[in-house]
Amino acid sequence: MLANIDLSREIGKAAYRKAKPALELKLAELQRRARGLGIPVLVVFEGWGASGKGTLINELLLPLDPRGVSVISSLAPSEEEALRPFLWRFWCHTPARGRITLLDRSWYRRVVADRVEGEVSGKALEEAFADILAFERQLAMDGTVLVKFFLHISRKEQRKRFKKLESHSTTAWRVTRADWKHHRHYDEYLDATSDMLGRTDSEFAPWTIVEAHDQRFATLKILSTVVAALEQRIARFEITKRSTRAPAAAPDLPAALRASVLDQVDLSVTLPEPEYRRRLERGQDRLRELEHEIYRHRIPVVLVFEGWDAAGKGGNIKRVTRNLDPRGYEVVPIAAPHDIEKAHHYLWRFWTEMPKAGHVTIFDRSWYGRVLVERVEGFCSEAEWRRAYREINEMEQHLAHAGGVLLKFWLHIDKAEQLRRFRERERLTHKQWKITAEDWRNRERWDAYRAAVDEMLFRTSTPDAPWSVIESNCKRHARVKVLEIIIGALERRLRRARRRRD
Amino acid sequence: MLANIDLSREIGKAAYRKAKPALELKLAELQRRARGLGIPVLVVFEGWGASGKGTLINELLLPLDPRGVSVISSLAPSEEEALRPFLWRFWCHTPARGRITLLDRSWYRRVVADRVEGEVSGKALEEAFADILAFERQLAMDGTVLVKFFLHISRKEQRKRFKKLESHSTTAWRVTRADWKHHRHYDEYLDATSDMLGRTDSEFAPWTIVEAHDQRFATLKILSTVVAALEQRIARFEITKRSTRAPAAAPDLPAALRASVLDQVDLSVTLPEPEYRRRLERGQDRLRELEHEIYRHRIPVVLVFEGWDAAGKGGNIKRVTRNLDPRGYEVVPIAAPHDIEKAHHYLWRFWTEMPKAGHVTIFDRSWYGRVLVERVEGFCSEAEWRRAYREINEMEQHLAHAGGVLLKFWLHIDKAEQLRRFRERERLTHKQWKITAEDWRNRERWDAYRAAVDEMLFRTSTPDAPWSVIESNCKRHARVKVLEIIIGALERRLRRARRRRD
Repeated sequence: MLANIDLSREIGKAAYRKAKPALELKLAELQRRARGLGIPVLVVFEGWGASGKGTLINELLLPLDPRGVSVISSLAPSEEEALRPFLWRFWCHTPARGRITLLDRSWYRRVVADRVEGEVSGKALEEAFADILAFERQLAMDGTVLVKFFLHISRKEQRKRFKKLESHSTTAWRVTRADWKHHRHYDEYLDATSDMLGRTDSEFAPWTIVEAHDQRFATLKILSTVVAALEQRIARFEITKRSTRAPAAAPDLPAALRASVLDQVDLSVTLPEPEYRRRLERGQDRLRELEHEIYRHRIPVVLVFEGWDAAGKGGNIKRVTRNLDPRGYEVVPIAAPHDIEKAHHYLWRFWTEMPKAGHVTIFDRSWYGRVLVERVEGFCSEAEWRRAYREINEMEQHLAHAGGVLLKFWLHIDKAEQLRRFRERERLTHKQWKITAEDWRNRERWDAYRAAVDEMLFRTSTPDAPWSVIESNCKRHARVKVLEIIIGALERRLRRARRRRD
Repeated sequence: MLANIDLSREIGKAAYRKAKPALELKLAELQRRARGLGIPVLVVFEGWGASGKGTLINELLLPLDPRGVSVISSLAPSEEEALRPFLWRFWCHTPARGRITLLDRSWYRRVVADRVEGEVSGKALEEAFADILAFERQLAMDGTVLVKFFLHISRKEQRKRFKKLESHSTTAWRVTRADWKHHRHYDEYLDATSDMLGRTDSEFAPWTIVEAHDQRFATLKILSTVVAALEQRIARFEITKRSTRAPAAAPDLPAALRASVLDQVDLSVTLPEPEYRRRLERGQDRLRELEHEIYRHRIPVVLVFEGWDAAGKGGNIKRVTRNLDPRGYEVVPIAAPHDIEKAHHYLWRFWTEMPKAGHVTIFDRSWYGRVLVERVEGFCSEAEWRRAYREINEMEQHLAHAGGVLLKFWLHIDKAEQLRRFRERERLTHKQWKITAEDWRNRERWDAYRAAVDEMLFRTSTPDAPWSVIESNCKRHARVKVLEIIIGALERRLRRARRRRD
C-alpha cells in the first residue's frame, strides 16, 4: 500500500485556512453525537520517526472536547507491560462507549519494529498477525470505530528532518541514536511496513496512508478521514434505528485528499522504434529461457492484465507470449460470467484456472472485475466490493504461500488517447470488431472507473502481489516495460529458489 | 473439543426406526427448498480411519435427490493437485447455488495428517490455518451453508474395526499399512486434531463431533444436524425477505443427540477424610514450591473457576491458595459488570486483570458468564453469545502465545445436592449470607443452564486451555482433584520451559 504514494502532495495556505474551520466544527459536532450514541472511537497513529505524529495528533485533538478524549503514547512496553501478552496494554486502553482514544503508536510495533529487529519471526510473527486481526475484529463487532493512520515520509525527508532537529539546541535531544539506526534501516522497515499494511487492512479496520511531507495536507486528510468514519458509523446507527434497509453509503474523501496513483503517471514517455525492437527481442528470448527455469523449479506464475478499454492488453499479452513454449503457459480471457459461473462464489472461476507449479497463466482481465466493473455498474453491493479487497488479498496470499509469483499490470492511457484509438478502431475494417457500444458507455463513466482503479491499486498492492502501472500512451514503451518487469521478478524469484536449494 | 466426548452413546433399533423416516422426508424437502432459494451446501466429513465415513455419507446421500448432490472423495492430493495451492482443488469443488457437495475428507489434511507427518510446521502451519479460515469465511459470506463433521472413535475401537476388516478376505484389502501406522500414532493425531478443531470452530462454520461407535446414533446425529443447519439458513432467508428483524433462532438438536459432557460425570465418587488430609497437605506444599518455580521461569498462570451455585468455588479456591505466597497470586471475584465495565467490550474487564508473567490470577467466575448467565437470561443477543465462543478461544490463544498456563474448572453437582446445600445455608446463621433469592431463581432454569454449560465445555475446551469437570458432590474429592490437576499442569509446563533453556 506504500507503493506509488505521491509524497509531493500539498495544500496551499489559503485553501487550508478555508477548509479547516469547517472540518473542526464538524468534528466537534460528530464527537457529541457519537457520545450520545455511545460509540467508542479508537484512532491509531503509526508512521516514521519525525513524520509529525505529535503535531498531527494535536491537530486532531484541538477541536475535540477534551473531557471525551484520551491520548495514549505507547513506546516500547514498560517492564510491567512486557510481562504480559503484547495486546494486554492496548486492551486496557480501549475506549469506553462514547469516548475517543488517540494512540501514538500501537500494537503494530510487534509486527514491524520487533520483526525488523529479529525479536519476532516465523511462527510467533504469524501468531501476532492472527492475534491482531482477532483483536480488531472483536472491537469492530462490538461497535468501535477503528481509524488507522500511517504517516508516510521518504527516507530523504526523514534525514532532512532529523538534521534540522539536531541543528537547534532546544530540539537536538529529540533525535536519538535509535532514530538514526532506524533511518539507516529505512528500507527494511519499509518492507516490513508494506507487508503489515497489506495484511491488516480490513473492511472493519482499514488503513489510511497520510502523505506527511506537507503538514497542511496531512492535517486536512486526518481530520477529513475521522469525520468520514464518524459520519458513516452514525449514519448506520440511525438507519438501524429507523429500520430501513438501505446501506449507509460511505462518504468519500474529497478527491484532493484521496491517494491517487494514477495522478502520478507520466503518460508522455515514449520509446523509439529501434530501441524497442532491440529490447523487445532480447526480452522475449530471455523470457523463454526463464519459462524453462521456472518449470524446472516448479514455480507457478500468474500474470494479470487490467486496463482501460483500448489500452493495449491484447497486444501486450501477444508480445509476452511471442516466444514462449505453448505447453508452459495459458492465456485466460475473462468476460462477464456465464450462468454456471454466476452460480458460484465470484472467485471460483478464477480458482479453477490457477496454474499448476511450473506453469504460467495470463489473465486478460481478472477477479479485479469485482472492484471495477461490478462496483461501478452496481452489479454487486457496496458491502460486497468493500469486502472483496480483503478476499482478493487473501486469495493472492494463498498463492504466495504456495510459492507462486503474481504480477499485476494496469495499462494506463488518458481519455484523449482512448478517443483516438476508439476512432481508429471504427475506421479500420480489421479493427472494427474490437469496438462496441459498451466501450463508449464505459467511457462515459471514466471518472467513476478512475476512482475505483485508484482504490484498487491502493488496497491490493502487496509485497507478494504488486501492481505495476504501465504508461501505455506509447505502446512500444508499455510492451517493453511489462516484459522487463516480468523478467526482473522471475529472476529474483529464481535466485531465491536457488539459494534455498544450496 | 474431543475431551470428555461420551463414545458409548447409542440408540436402540426401535427408536432409530421410528425417528429416521421423518428425518429423511424432512431432509428431502429441505433440499428442494434450498435448491429453490439457490443456497449452496457443503458438508465436510472428517474422522478416524474406520470410523464409518463411507457408510455414513451414504446414509446422508440416500434421502437426497441425486441430481442435486455431488460426493467428492479427496485422499492425498494427486500429482496434478499437489502442484497447486492446497485449497485449489476444494475451490474447484465448491457447490453451485442450490447444490449440495459432500466431501469425504477435506482441506483439514493440511493441518492434521501433514502436520503429524512433519510435512507442514511452524510458519507454514500458521499460514495454512489462516488460509483455511479465510476460505471458510469467504464461502459463508457468500451464503454457503457449511456443515463440518468429525467422526470420533476410540483407539481401542479403531483397532477392533481394523482387525475385523482384516479377518474377512473380502474386506482385508481395506486396511493398509498406512492405516496401522496412523493407529500406532493415534495419540499424536488426537492432539493435532484437538488443536485443529479448536482453531477452526467458528460461528460461520462450526464443528459437530459425531460419536461414531454406534452407527444408528451417528446416522441420526448427522441427519439431524444437516436438517437443523438447513432449517436455520432457510429461516434466515425468509426473514430477510419479509424484512422483519427478528433473529432466526437456531433449532437445537434433540437432547438425545447433543454431545453432553455433564451426562458422563460420575457424581458418586468420594474421598475418605484421612486420605483427603494427606493429599491436600502434600498438594498444598508442592504448589507453594511450584509457585516459586513459575515465578523464576516467568510463566503467567490463569485459573478459572466456574460451577453451579453452591458447588464450592470459594472453598476450592481457599484450598488452592492456602499455602501460597500472597505476593505471587491474586483472586479476582467476578460479579455483574458495573457501569464503567458495561461501557466497554465484555472482555475488557478480564483483560485488565490478566496476570503478569510469573504470577497467578484466580478468577472466581469469569468471561464465561457471556455464554452462561448472559445467554440464559437474554442479557446479550444470540449472535453475540454464538460469536463469543470464538472470541473467548482467541483471547485464551493469545495468552497461550505469550507462554501462559490456563486451566478452567467446572465444579459439578447435581440438583439434589444443590438443594441440600441451599437448605443448609438457610439453616446455618454463618452461611445465610451465601444464599439469595437469585440463587433460587437460577435453580429454576437448571435445564437451560445445563445446555449452556454443555455447549461451553464442548466449544471452548482447547489443548491450550482445557476444561476439567470436577465431580463436586464430595467436596474433599473436588478439592484434591483441582489441586492435583494444577500441580500436574504446572509441572508439565516447567519441564517444557527447562527443556527449552537447555
